Amino acid sequence: MFEAAELGTSVDKQTFSREAARIRAELLEAQKRLAQANFSVLIIVAGVEGAGKPETVNLLLEWMDARGIQTHAFGVPSDEERERPNYWRYWRVLPPKGRIGIFFGSWYTAPIVDHVLGETSHAEFDLALDEIVALERMLSQENVLVLKFWMHLPKKAQKKRLKALAADRNTRWRVTKLDWKFFKQYDAFRECSEQALRKTSTGEAPWHIVDASDERYRSLTVTRTLLETLQKRLQQSENKPKAPAEKPPLPKPDKVNVINRLDLSVSLSDKKYKKKLLKLSGRLARLTRRLYEKNRSLIVVFEGPDAAGKGGAIRRLTGAMDARNYQVISIAAPTEEERAHPYLWRFWRHLPRLGRVTIFDRSWYGRVLVERIEGFCSQAEWERAYAEINAFEEQIARFGISVVKFWLAISTEEQLRRFKDRETTPYKQYKLTEEDWRNRDKWGAYEAAACDMIEKTSTELAPWVIVEANEKLHARIKVLTTVCGLLEKALG
Amino acid sequence: MFEAAELGTSVDKQTFSREAARIRAELLEAQKRLAQANFSVLIIVAGVEGAGKPETVNLLLEWMDARGIQTHAFGVPSDEERERPNYWRYWRVLPPKGRIGIFFGSWYTAPIVDHVLGETSHAEFDLALDEIVALERMLSQENVLVLKFWMHLPKKAQKKRLKALAADRNTRWRVTKLDWKFFKQYDAFRECSEQALRKTSTGEAPWHIVDASDERYRSLTVTRTLLETLQKRLQQSENKPKAPAEKPPLPKPDKVNVINRLDLSVSLSDKKYKKKLLKLSGRLARLTRRLYEKNRSLIVVFEGPDAAGKGGAIRRLTGAMDARNYQVISIAAPTEEERAHPYLWRFWRHLPRLGRVTIFDRSWYGRVLVERIEGFCSQAEWERAYAEINAFEEQIARFGISVVKFWLAISTEEQLRRFKDRETTPYKQYKLTEEDWRNRDKWGAYEAAACDMIEKTSTELAPWVIVEANEKLHARIKVLTTVCGLLEKALG
Repeated sequence: MFEAAELGTSVDKQTFSREAARIRAELLEAQKRLAQANFSVLIIVAGVEGAGKPETVNLLLEWMDARGIQTHAFGVPSDEERERPNYWRYWRVLPPKGRIGIFFGSWYTAPIVDHVLGETSHAEFDLALDEIVALERMLSQENVLVLKFWMHLPKKAQKKRLKALAADRNTRWRVTKLDWKFFKQYDAFRECSEQALRKTSTGEAPWHIVDASDERYRSLTVTRTLLETLQKRLQQSENKPKAPAEKPPLPKPDKVNVINRLDLSVSLSDKKYKKKLLKLSGRLARLTRRLYEKNRSLIVVFEGPDAAGKGGAIRRLTGAMDARNYQVISIAAPTEEERAHPYLWRFWRHLPRLGRVTIFDRSWYGRVLVERIEGFCSQAEWERAYAEINAFEEQIARFGISVVKFWLAISTEEQLRRFKDRETTPYKQYKLTEEDWRNRDKWGAYEAAACDMIEKTSTELAPWVIVEANEKLHARIKVLTTVCGLLEKALG
Repeated sequence: MFEAAELGTSVDKQTFSREAARIRAELLEAQKRLAQANFSVLIIVAGVEGAGKPETVNLLLEWMDARGIQTHAFGVPSDEERERPNYWRYWRVLPPKGRIGIFFGSWYTAPIVDHVLGETSHAEFDLALDEIVALERMLSQENVLVLKFWMHLPKKAQKKRLKALAADRNTRWRVTKLDWKFFKQYDAFRECSEQALRKTSTGEAPWHIVDASDERYRSLTVTRTLLETLQKRLQQSENKPKAPAEKPPLPKPDKVNVINRLDLSVSLSDKKYKKKLLKLSGRLARLTRRLYEKNRSLIVVFEGPDAAGKGGAIRRLTGAMDARNYQVISIAAPTEEERAHPYLWRFWRHLPRLGRVTIFDRSWYGRVLVERIEGFCSQAEWERAYAEINAFEEQIARFGISVVKFWLAISTEEQLRRFKDRETTPYKQYKLTEEDWRNRDKWGAYEAAACDMIEKTSTELAPWVIVEANEKLHARIKVLTTVCGLLEKALG
């Protein structure tokens, strides 16, 4: 795989000057068009030490308009980063639409190094690479143009280069003991990197292996590749016909499905409720305290029709918790910054630190519910969202965060009753909006979408729990019982 | 000061129910109006342990619409927080317009505890309180309604309460050894807190001391105070006449001032420039490396007219640095999220971690330059900005971050020459916009504003360096020399 990058191709000074002037002007022009475009650019700079990675980043910043570019180097993770799933540190700095992000070090570093050092098995290595492929595919579909450069040097050339860097007092610090240690394992790194590159060079995000032995050749190769990829994508994006205005037909619920077959008549007496609530609150208080002490985290997701009682159920949960350790995140329309990123970005933002609880009042499932029904995203987008969401939740769960998702189910008659109640009770009026009435007209479509969602995203790691919520008291107790049970299992 | 809160006032159950229903409905109504308003609400919950702080937060979340409220507890700072000036952790979670933030623990905690434990002198304690007063005044002027509650218990009541908490298995964890240790110093805490409250109870952000011995009384006091303050502010904000459309007269520059008295004819031969650049680049590379190793940070600010050569000077700086350790932040129009916060918020976001360099291509000085000239902020706003900026930079500098600010000065003829050059050189065209031509018409006003700015914000800790920039080579060398000199001094 690296053979073609070991030919020692070089470029003479004159050719370089001529080409550089052209590429530079065109890159700036492309960047200007990018600022208006509907996608962002992510450039991953990877490869062997001494192959000119920092020089390449400086070159890009010099040739382009540095105001549209952010560079991010990923060294040792901070504690805030260590307290979240691996990818969090990358998500938090993803470039927004119209801008370029350069990643110096990336999600490739740890899998390759860990595998060369024998810390991961072949299967684990493969799994890590599969995860990367899925992530990059998703980013690419979410309008992030991913460009990956691998700077390559043959063994001898790397040795020579490291020695040269070590001999110059301005660059001496760049060659560490670790670099020499890794150099001794050149062949192992080469083999492992080749595997990684082969498995992750996809149509959406191919690797560009750059022969880095000649600086001029390296510079022209990188910038030319960037320019051509960018121009091609700009053209596609500018020529793209506007999305058709017509909305897809609304889904219809099956006659019998997981939601409408529920027995919504279950209920609880006020007396029993009070007794159970008191007991469960104490249990939850102790459990969330242990969660905190054991540095574990919990995510609780609430979805369901308007007026299904999400807020009330959430208050019964939080009432038993220490206000210092939980966050309730209510999901409404995304902000401008959120809209400029892949849709999962705004949920990654809110993942809890260790020991904390985050409750989502509506969530990423909006993608396959309201966005699907209202046509806020395309059919292709919500169809692939199920797999993306499963991958997202798997990363969360595998990191050790417990996840539970509640669907609060009510009947259409009960919703009407609650809407009317809201209209007449002063301190409930704020809860009722025009939109609620409009959503009601699409009851069947929402029910069908919810059934699809539950079918496709209820997993062992992050199960859906359907709650009969026509009777609030029963619903709240079921939510509390479920969360307590989950925590007991998770905390051992 | 605490005497009035030691009367043990209580409220009977019936009064509570009646009042609670009224307050709750009105709070929700007020919160609904807040969502449309032009300000945010920051509630600080402080006071003695066992006085019901977490209970109060839970109550607020229960009575109001939790979807518009974010709670933030400040315990031990994370490493990312420790690597920035003290206030960074608070700035990063300030509530945006229309929303409520509850701070559990706040900027009061450390000054009071440190002083009681004898770790700070009287003078240092006073200084910390002065800083808080200035911060809260600024927040308040920047449309953050600051509400401060101090939950008070007399000594005996606190002891009783701590014992009760410790006796219940659900709340036992809340009483730590530290709480008992602090309780032994009740009198010292009382004295010190009283001082703090007295000095920081201002017109903009008064303290509300709450007698916390009776839960019902405490709950009603807090919610009623919040409600009344919120309603008053909503009324003010809704009745406020729209800002007058007419713009204030533009400032005129003095005949002789720090900018126009410059000798812009200084120049440098190409040969000398190349020699110096090479030498300075090496020096800067080594210095920023030492900065990284010594865990120090640097902020460089660039301001100046369009086409003054900011980008070129920045590239000469970054060309000598390790791309992993610097960030160039270009300041353009604020995003929606940024507009929903006090204007300094978006600069706090970008403060460097330890060991890093952040270069601002335009900066917070936009407040007293473009925003002043174009009327984007009111006269009162830019007039108080000088002091706010000085306080901001003082916090940065006192934390150990080196700060230097460059004003690149060019003549109006030179700017015209560069604009024309940009029009005709393909790879420079992107730099020239309509706006640049419009700004040119206000040359004198910008010069006058810059002179005011330099006069009012050039401090020992964060000096302005005026650079004769008609000749780019000279300007770049002066910038490099200044930064190297500053780093040498800072790193010892």
